[in-house]
Amino acid sequence: MSRELIQHIREFTKLTDDQADFITASVSERKVLKKELLLTTGDICRVNYFVVSGCLRLFFIDEQGMERTIQFAIENWWMTDYTSKDRNVPSQYSIQAVEDSIIISLDNKTSEKLFATIPALETYFRKILQRAYSASLFRIGLLYSRSKEEMFFGF
Amino acid sequence: MSRELIQHIREFTKLTDDQADFITASVSERKVLKKELLLTTGDICRVNYFVVSGCLRLFFIDEQGMERTIQFAIENWWMTDYTSKDRNVPSQYSIQAVEDSIIISLDNKTSEKLFATIPALETYFRKILQRAYSASLFRIGLLYSRSKEEMFFGF
Repeated sequence: MSRELIQHIREFTKLTDDQADFITASVSERKVLKKELLLTTGDICRVNYFVVSGCLRLFFIDEQGMERTIQFAIENWWMTDYTSKDRNVPSQYSIQAVEDSIIISLDNKTSEKLFATIPALETYFRKILQRAYSASLFRIGLLYSRSKEEMFFGF
Repeated sequence: MSRELIQHIREFTKLTDDQADFITASVSERKVLKKELLLTTGDICRVNYFVVSGCLRLFFIDEQGMERTIQFAIENWWMTDYTSKDRNVPSQYSIQAVEDSIIISLDNKTSEKLFATIPALETYFRKILQRAYSASLFRIGLLYSRSKEEMFFGF
């Protein structure tokens, strides 16, 4: 259980076996089915999801009623709505399983406890956020390079 | 010097006066002129810039030779190319002052030294990256909602 997460953390920072055991005991892993919603627009997001296998997507409904996916999370990526989570406000997004997936849920209370106990986790999340942030800027660049039609069918 | 940065860090995490002095002594503040380039496409990005006053932009040149701004950094925002900085590869972007600005430069070696000495900085950067990442996802959502013409003239 959670072997993939521990392995992923250790790619970015050091973790003792005791710390790894503590993390493993603090988080829960479960299977979600294709199309299952983990967050629904209007709800407050209180969980950060780590994808062990499968794929999640973050999307919103635009003014024309179209679903617009603004991010995918595949194996070893995290997905949450930080705006909703950090400010305790309703989310503008939904999170849905694109296919049957195995995910690890890290709720707010647990993450606060883990950050307070294991400073290395701050380093881990800083580094993966640098990567996620870069990826989103790259995505913005791609959107500029695509025609409206390509955007519509391509994402 | 660097008072704004220390104040900004303290909005997100605790910092002792000694730590604040150490940060202040480690970073440099300077004025940059409108249109001055801090990073040029093809160079390796080795610095993270904090905007004390003024505005920076991150842009790339598209296939039609047009400059495409994918991010602005105003007061209290950081700007860098994490992909180039973390992987030591040439940047696809340029960073330029939009107007006369006061910036604080944090180079890679200094930031490594600071992270090793002041763990609270990991928390600070994790939290500001959560915010920056959320802002870029929001931007992606906006791009979906705009026509190609609005994208062209609007950014």
